[in-house]
Amino acid sequence: MRILIINPNSDLDMTRTIEAAGRAFAAGRFEVDCLATPGAPRFIETYEDQALTAPGMIGLIRENHGAFDAFVIACHCDPNLDLMKEISRKPVVGIGEASMKLATMLGHRFSVISTAAHSVPNKEALIEKYHLRDDLASVRSPGEAEADAELEDKFYRMAKAAVDEDGAEVIVLGCAGLAGLDKRLQAKLGVPVLDGVVCALIIAAGLAQYGVSTSKARRYKPD
Amino acid sequence: MRILIINPNSDLDMTRTIEAAGRAFAAGRFEVDCLATPGAPRFIETYEDQALTAPGMIGLIRENHGAFDAFVIACHCDPNLDLMKEISRKPVVGIGEASMKLATMLGHRFSVISTAAHSVPNKEALIEKYHLRDDLASVRSPGEAEADAELEDKFYRMAKAAVDEDGAEVIVLGCAGLAGLDKRLQAKLGVPVLDGVVCALIIAAGLAQYGVSTSKARRYKPD
Amino acid sequence: MRILIINPNSDLDMTRTIEAAGRAFAAGRFEVDCLATPGAPRFIETYEDQALTAPGMIGLIRENHGAFDAFVIACHCDPNLDLMKEISRKPVVGIGEASMKLATMLGHRFSVISTAAHSVPNKEALIEKYHLRDDLASVRSPGEAEADAELEDKFYRMAKAAVDEDGAEVIVLGCAGLAGLDKRLQAKLGVPVLDGVVCALIIAAGLAQYGVSTSKARRYKPD
Amino acid sequence: MRILIINPNSDLDMTRTIEAAGRAFAAGRFEVDCLATPGAPRFIETYEDQALTAPGMIGLIRENHGAFDAFVIACHCDPNLDLMKEISRKPVVGIGEASMKLATMLGHRFSVISTAAHSVPNKEALIEKYHLRDDLASVRSPGEAEADAELEDKFYRMAKAAVDEDGAEVIVLGCAGLAGLDKRLQAKLGVPVLDGVVCALIIAAGLAQYGVSTSKARRYKPD
Amino acid sequence: MRILIINPNSDLDMTRTIEAAGRAFAAGRFEVDCLATPGAPRFIETYEDQALTAPGMIGLIRENHGAFDAFVIACHCDPNLDLMKEISRKPVVGIGEASMKLATMLGHRFSVISTAAHSVPNKEALIEKYHLRDDLASVRSPGEAEADAELEDKFYRMAKAAVDEDGAEVIVLGCAGLAGLDKRLQAKLGVPVLDGVVCALIIAAGLAQYGVSTSKARRYKPD
Amino acid sequence: MRILIINPNSDLDMTRTIEAAGRAFAAGRFEVDCLATPGAPRFIETYEDQALTAPGMIGLIRENHGAFDAFVIACHCDPNLDLMKEISRKPVVGIGEASMKLATMLGHRFSVISTAAHSVPNKEALIEKYHLRDDLASVRSPGEAEADAELEDKFYRMAKAAVDEDGAEVIVLGCAGLAGLDKRLQAKLGVPVLDGVVCALIIAAGLAQYGVSTSKARRYKPD
Repeated sequence: MRILIINPNSDLDMTRTIEAAGRAFAAGRFEVDCLATPGAPRFIETYEDQALTAPGMIGLIRENHGAFDAFVIACHCDPNLDLMKEISRKPVVGIGEASMKLATMLGHRFSVISTAAHSVPNKEALIEKYHLRDDLASVRSPGEAEADAELEDKFYRMAKAAVDEDGAEVIVLGCAGLAGLDKRLQAKLGVPVLDGVVCALIIAAGLAQYGVSTSKARRYKPD
Repeated sequence: MRILIINPNSDLDMTRTIEAAGRAFAAGRFEVDCLATPGAPRFIETYEDQALTAPGMIGLIRENHGAFDAFVIACHCDPNLDLMKEISRKPVVGIGEASMKLATMLGHRFSVISTAAHSVPNKEALIEKYHLRDDLASVRSPGEAEADAELEDKFYRMAKAAVDEDGAEVIVLGCAGLAGLDKRLQAKLGVPVLDGVVCALIIAAGLAQYGVSTSKARRYKPD
Repeated sequence: MRILIINPNSDLDMTRTIEAAGRAFAAGRFEVDCLATPGAPRFIETYEDQALTAPGMIGLIRENHGAFDAFVIACHCDPNLDLMKEISRKPVVGIGEASMKLATMLGHRFSVISTAAHSVPNKEALIEKYHLRDDLASVRSPGEAEADAELEDKFYRMAKAAVDEDGAEVIVLGCAGLAGLDKRLQAKLGVPVLDGVVCALIIAAGLAQYGVSTSKARRYKPD
Repeated sequence: MRILIINPNSDLDMTRTIEAAGRAFAAGRFEVDCLATPGAPRFIETYEDQALTAPGMIGLIRENHGAFDAFVIACHCDPNLDLMKEISRKPVVGIGEASMKLATMLGHRFSVISTAAHSVPNKEALIEKYHLRDDLASVRSPGEAEADAELEDKFYRMAKAAVDEDGAEVIVLGCAGLAGLDKRLQAKLGVPVLDGVVCALIIAAGLAQYGVSTSKARRYKPD
Repeated sequence: MRILIINPNSDLDMTRTIEAAGRAFAAGRFEVDCLATPGAPRFIETYEDQALTAPGMIGLIRENHGAFDAFVIACHCDPNLDLMKEISRKPVVGIGEASMKLATMLGHRFSVISTAAHSVPNKEALIEKYHLRDDLASVRSPGEAEADAELEDKFYRMAKAAVDEDGAEVIVLGCAGLAGLDKRLQAKLGVPVLDGVVCALIIAAGLAQYGVSTSKARRYKPD
Repeated sequence: MRILIINPNSDLDMTRTIEAAGRAFAAGRFEVDCLATPGAPRFIETYEDQALTAPGMIGLIRENHGAFDAFVIACHCDPNLDLMKEISRKPVVGIGEASMKLATMLGHRFSVISTAAHSVPNKEALIEKYHLRDDLASVRSPGEAEADAELEDKFYRMAKAAVDEDGAEVIVLGCAGLAGLDKRLQAKLGVPVLDGVVCALIIAAGLAQYGVSTSKARRYKPD
């Protein structure tokens, strides 16, 4: 079985990090490749970034459709996920959707820890789209005072506050490309910490194994 | 005051119909132009259609930003509306959002009457995004048996059923380019029937007059 | 076109302020009159105040029904709005409903800034009635420590806190009769600030122009 | 202990029926009086009816405040209930609120059986106000074909349909003044059938006995 | 009329306290007995505790079914309440459900004051089950710093904070066996404070008097 | 890796069927055992059945805790799932929760196809507990007229009606022990059909591989 991880941005370092993390989790049980999206922005932050990466993502999924058994979209805002589900006959899993839905099976409420204030309302809109508002403790992003703090410290402090002040019982990392941070934070916090890429691989590999894919009944019918 | 209506598809007939309807409503109180989107599909039905029309819509709004006071997106699925709000400093109004939110001020529950079965779940997803689920009576689309019926008959029968069986008190037309149908159906049904283009012009002109536009606090901040 | 603004209280100064603000916005595009409600309390704060002003409001709308094209109810708790919609065949718009629903089109979440602690739960109940709870950041009112502060300072501090602490992207002024405060606060805060009277005039004028009014299907049928 | 049932309409026959039913339930454990509202309409159907009965209801509760230990509002649309709670320091219970909230303790979902199509959306709005939408199976009213049917037959057929087709497990009678119908329908249907007056007496007597009443913290503070 | 209060734990002191409080409220209007559950844990805190007490509770209700007219489950997490409703043909009332639903009739929002941090998410899950999330101000439990504080002081401070900071207008005591605390806190706080045992007795006695019990239509059908 | 499937009932045939299906899916990638619950009822239908099987399930999970890496609870009503999550330090996955949450990733709305009318409200209560109400098309069970129909025919007709009439895009089988029915129905219906045991194995194996388990922060803390 082969799974293609689509990195919706064009950052090659992040692409390699994601691929390595995916392969480490797969551990030979299935093959994992990760591709950056041609013509995509360097980061996906705005709605415009999401639109600009769509043509490249469409191309990637169409060109690789025969060679892979399932697809993972590796940006935590799940850009163009409805579209990817629509044009593929194979399982397509977003790391945002997979990590947040798995989180609901592991504790009472989850918090998402994100990198920029900008992303709080956008993440909240995504959470509502997935009908997860009642499972959410909070979405946190670093304040301005935190701008220069070291990434892992920042994430630790936000996650700790989510657990202590917001009632979070599970932490979801709100970005791809943070390989290893999940385990280090989990060890310090004592609650489950989820990396979206791993979560999406669990679901994508499982669905491919099982032989089910997106329903073509109506919403994701390609024409 | 000048308002630009962006028709997200590339159908020139529909573009002219929308422009005429918009000008008829404006009646000289403000100027209305309507432009088709370059490079867009002929119809906007799928998530892929919505992605393919994004670059053209971005171009239209950027090129015309200085010359107009507000923008209307004239497709009832509000394609790329978040993006348009993000990149513009002037009011941007979707005909889906405007017509359904105005409908909530005119009666207990509204129904959307749509053209294709395909669009029912997509419209439901849009309605949830706008937090309008509790205001909704139903989304109706013609069954297969209706495929060859005359458009106005079909819409009348669906709207009648929505009022009689689903408890709808207001009818929202789920497509652009149906100029005049609102008034003819309203006369027959005896309940308000809303055309999205007119509704969006009411809001867009009002916001421009008032001097308020999309908040740039976080969600629609362009960078 | 002529619009009658009904001030549900009996305060003549506030009535004149509202009329002036309404006319300033209309700017000759339509006529605006504002009338105080005969027999009404000086302020509308309690449920009893709302009941006591009903007979006068019924009288005002009945006596002036032929002479005006639409009606605005100018108290932010929308007193007797269902009743006004029920007995009129012309558009009736509450400033609470209009301002809060327009706010949802301008940003991710809105906050209402109110004058008295008393009004917080009553406003929350109103917000739930309009199914706007998911669009709400917060309802804020001045604490006791603020009792003697200057009105504009108080409103600024509450609005600033709503933006910085509650995630509000749009501010709604929770009272009528604050003409001009919207623009001064908007300039300081950098986010849209909405005055209910202007918002209601946008909707009321638009609906009258369009020729649609409250559905008489069931809920607002007068008998 | 004495409980005053306020009949918000002016129908003396219904007033006597309600009083007799209330006394039959009280069975000497507490005293029950029922008064018609002076100056009220004959029936309470519209929002205007609700407003017109407010002054009389205010008068009744103020004049009788010292002589009674609790008050019941005996119209299933709970007219002016917020106001009655606000102006009284003693328990005030609406028959709509009491019967529908008790219904949620007796089965999975309840249906309300009402007398007129007019009342369906109004009842739905009331149900949302009480946050009972997720407990509701349906609100049913007789169709036009049923206009001339005998009342008990009509109610039986609607209740039977609610149980068989809508999944109702408990039936709530949507009107006051139907003394005895609850027990006759319950015997035929085999599910609990609730009369609002009895339900409200249970709660009102219990609260009075317990010594708790409406909170005056904020929402129901009289000034 | 005789009501059996089932104490789901095996603590005999608490059983006697509950019985005394129940009899004090009943004041001879009906008989009250309270029994501890044989084989139950000393306290009911965890999901395992709830399961371990089920066989004893089943036994108690079956052995005493003929001798009593209604049953109260006297633990605020309502352990095995669905099961008790299922196997009994007489009214069964949980003190959590009764107290929180009565609270919604007495003020805008209620807070539950609980004994252990452990119980906050469990209580939230219960509140969601009863569809009371929109009526809730907060669930509060003592922080670690409070571990050694005197019980009444702790409850007072939590309740005060709920009223002042969370907008609670009614306080619900989140444990059984606190007889008298309701009245002492109510006197200090000036808002209604509800003890679950009393609330459940009000409902249970009322339902028994009325002759209605759990619907056997589907959800609570015993086979 | 070894996964233990706990069959909460005591039916040995069903236990063997489930084990075979589990092993077929695992296909050697991980080991699967299935055990019937000692002392459990033959079928789990009522709340009492769920309580009676708890001691046996507790015993099974405690005795086998060291020997397995994850646990699956193989009854679609997820009996005692909160308790199993509480007492285990390893992943515990219910087939109801897993199948319905995976269904939300595969289409707009899902329907659950169940065996008995009895189970409709109980399933609805479970769906609300998981916050999946907005993802649900319907829960269907065979009517009385269907009592004697062949199982596969019955399930096909219910699933077809769910797709055609209720808007379901994904079908979830509401029972364990139906190995093979998923693939046969999927072939006929053309939409994804999910068997709970397979879905739970996907999640359980994935979580065990990933090294995450139920949060012990609060709700599932064992003491």
